[in-house]
Amino acid sequence: MTTLSSLPYKGTRDFYPEEKRTQNYIFSIWRKIAEVYGYEEYGAPILEPLEIYTAKSGQELANEQTYSFLDRGGRTVAIRPEMTPSISRMVAARRQELAYPARLYSIANFMRYERPQRGREREFWQLNIDIFGDDSVSAEAEIIKMSDDIMKATGAKPEDYVIKINNRKLINFMMAQYLGLDAVQAQFMIKLLDRKEKISQQDFIDQATEVFGDLAEVGLPKIQALLNATSMAELPSEIRDSAAVSEVQELFTFLERAEVKSLVFDITLMRGFDYYTGMVFEVFDTNPDNNRALFGGGRYDGLVGLFGSEPISAVGVAPGGTTFLNFLESHNLVPKLISTTDIYLSVLGDTVREANKLANDFRSKNINVELDISGRKLDRQIKNVLKKKIPYILFLGEDEVKSGKYTLKNVAKSEEYKLKFDEIVELFAARRKGVK
Amino acid sequence: MTTLSSLPYKGTRDFYPEEKRTQNYIFSIWRKIAEVYGYEEYGAPILEPLEIYTAKSGQELANEQTYSFLDRGGRTVAIRPEMTPSISRMVAARRQELAYPARLYSIANFMRYERPQRGREREFWQLNIDIFGDDSVSAEAEIIKMSDDIMKATGAKPEDYVIKINNRKLINFMMAQYLGLDAVQAQFMIKLLDRKEKISQQDFIDQATEVFGDLAEVGLPKIQALLNATSMAELPSEIRDSAAVSEVQELFTFLERAEVKSLVFDITLMRGFDYYTGMVFEVFDTNPDNNRALFGGGRYDGLVGLFGSEPISAVGVAPGGTTFLNFLESHNLVPKLISTTDIYLSVLGDTVREANKLANDFRSKNINVELDISGRKLDRQIKNVLKKKIPYILFLGEDEVKSGKYTLKNVAKSEEYKLKFDEIVELFAARRKGVK
Repeated sequence: MTTLSSLPYKGTRDFYPEEKRTQNYIFSIWRKIAEVYGYEEYGAPILEPLEIYTAKSGQELANEQTYSFLDRGGRTVAIRPEMTPSISRMVAARRQELAYPARLYSIANFMRYERPQRGREREFWQLNIDIFGDDSVSAEAEIIKMSDDIMKATGAKPEDYVIKINNRKLINFMMAQYLGLDAVQAQFMIKLLDRKEKISQQDFIDQATEVFGDLAEVGLPKIQALLNATSMAELPSEIRDSAAVSEVQELFTFLERAEVKSLVFDITLMRGFDYYTGMVFEVFDTNPDNNRALFGGGRYDGLVGLFGSEPISAVGVAPGGTTFLNFLESHNLVPKLISTTDIYLSVLGDTVREANKLANDFRSKNINVELDISGRKLDRQIKNVLKKKIPYILFLGEDEVKSGKYTLKNVAKSEEYKLKFDEIVELFAARRKGVK
Repeated sequence: MTTLSSLPYKGTRDFYPEEKRTQNYIFSIWRKIAEVYGYEEYGAPILEPLEIYTAKSGQELANEQTYSFLDRGGRTVAIRPEMTPSISRMVAARRQELAYPARLYSIANFMRYERPQRGREREFWQLNIDIFGDDSVSAEAEIIKMSDDIMKATGAKPEDYVIKINNRKLINFMMAQYLGLDAVQAQFMIKLLDRKEKISQQDFIDQATEVFGDLAEVGLPKIQALLNATSMAELPSEIRDSAAVSEVQELFTFLERAEVKSLVFDITLMRGFDYYTGMVFEVFDTNPDNNRALFGGGRYDGLVGLFGSEPISAVGVAPGGTTFLNFLESHNLVPKLISTTDIYLSVLGDTVREANKLANDFRSKNINVELDISGRKLDRQIKNVLKKKIPYILFLGEDEVKSGKYTLKNVAKSEEYKLKFDEIVELFAARRKGVK
């Protein structure tokens, strides 16, 4: 038999306890903010019919980046590359039963066939927060406020990130009315604006000229005027007076009242997915070493209706685990995390039976105890405790069994205490309160 | 554009908040028991090279039941149908760095291409608990004790389930020494014993006769003697005196000392996976309406070594979400669960700004508040609160804003209280303690 490789599949990661702890820390921030705003958790299948992505997710995602295949029954399926189509399908399926606005969240894994690079893996984890059935700008305001709260909960300062806001209706108005582009040209221009930061200014002008064709002479100065505007007030007046802009202004008023700083209007913000219909936004890292989009979202009122139900309006956002971790790292915000295990119980001498009993007594008081069953040498055991980042060791020898006083060692402080069972239980109860 | 189906992919389930609550309840039991024994969480990729299953998981699983396909780069991959090969691969990859015994757990989803039926879905969730690097029977004892604790944590009584125990070495001894079968015959006999409960006695005898061939005259009474034994003491003496039986006896002594009731020795227990090398066990529901295996596990000392590392011994167990839920249902053990949201804040009159502020003040005290932004009629809002199973409604009108006393309604009790902000914060702090 040949040896099997111990490497994970390309672009995926193994999460050992050390890495899983950090991931769980990120998940706990996400979960806390979602639940504190009254969002409830749901789960969706890892596999979906491919067609739910070809409909509206964008050609590149559906055709080139999905892990799609024929199942043994001849159905074309895909490992989900994103959550929005799944949750839209679920809402459509129980359209009548759900209470609106429906506030829903999930934390789940996804796969996309892409070239792995910093901040981008083939398998990745995302929080998805969505509100269904509210047409007003309050829905966007709540989702963006939550995004801001998620960033704050990491310990980030308002200047560490910026929330860029734009509106698809405004983009459409700009393309058709202001720039006079037809649908096909508009598609190219949107993709071009989306790539603007990644290409040189000359490349941008060359490609824009190509898109404009005969209109280039009028179009180029117009697009330049747009790009020069750093606020809504500086926009060319024909755009500034549009209905879409007043919607954006209303959103800004809401968010300023809710004390969301870090807001910026950015007319070049496009967002890749085809399903967005209104407000779109993205959270950017301002650190020059990690100057990139962290996550984003927007309004997608047309998606639920594709599943044979009446249309239901929706706004959502989806932070991803890898980019989130990169943000924490680039701002020095990853906390030092320890094991979920409270005590490593080391058996000295012939006290195995008593050690089993003591471990179970602690466990019945919700204290997490790893019991030494290895019979390894003491220095080896202590090395393991340090590796596993367990905060306390309890040494159980025959003296301790007789006296009912146990030697508990705080590993980080290198301090030892002689404590009775009840005192140890109290110590951990107090510790949990403090940690909370 | 054609309408898309709103149904989930065959054999998978959508977990709406109602179902997700129940799933989270099950996960919380699993997590609690895993962590209280000092097991630490890890995560593994959803996709693996197919070959890690063809090696040792069993032909049926690898060849007929995996969701396997060629990725866009020509690699043959599979959606994981189980966790054991993944965690073995991970342990092999960090063989040198890990601290032993390594105690690891995960809660994850899996897929198998099977005919969906009660207790069996194509996508399913499992807890995997594994201990690596301990050769002694203490490892099995700990894993089985944890399995028993998991059952007890549901509120199940010892008579609601039974833990069947057998040993692969004993099976091998029985096949080769006692029954005199060669390797091929033994494979057939193992599969036949595995199916014994599902076929008639006559079918069993017919098929056993076929396996024995010329040996049938001697073999059939011998296997009958085995099947008649309801305890180790009743086993034919040649088997009773084997080393494997004394290992099982040692395990029973350990478990009886640890107060694990519900134990049964069952020489017909086989367990499907090819990788088991020692003790195997299964937890069975004793309810006649759900008389089936709930979950199982065993020792698999040979798997880590396949990934190019020295062998590392291992024992594991893996309860599944669907069978677990079936067990809870068949014994009436599913608790009534409510929303994670604490308060639904209903805006009466022109108090939107104050409502936003009040909601955020509660949130800063870790109280989960869903804020009404819908402007829907009050009876409609109350209906929604009932649907969502939110325990409290707070009505905020202008009087409440002025007086700083809020009307809080306990929905289940249909009682209303007039409380100040701090009193409400205290109420929820006390509630959380009580719930815990």
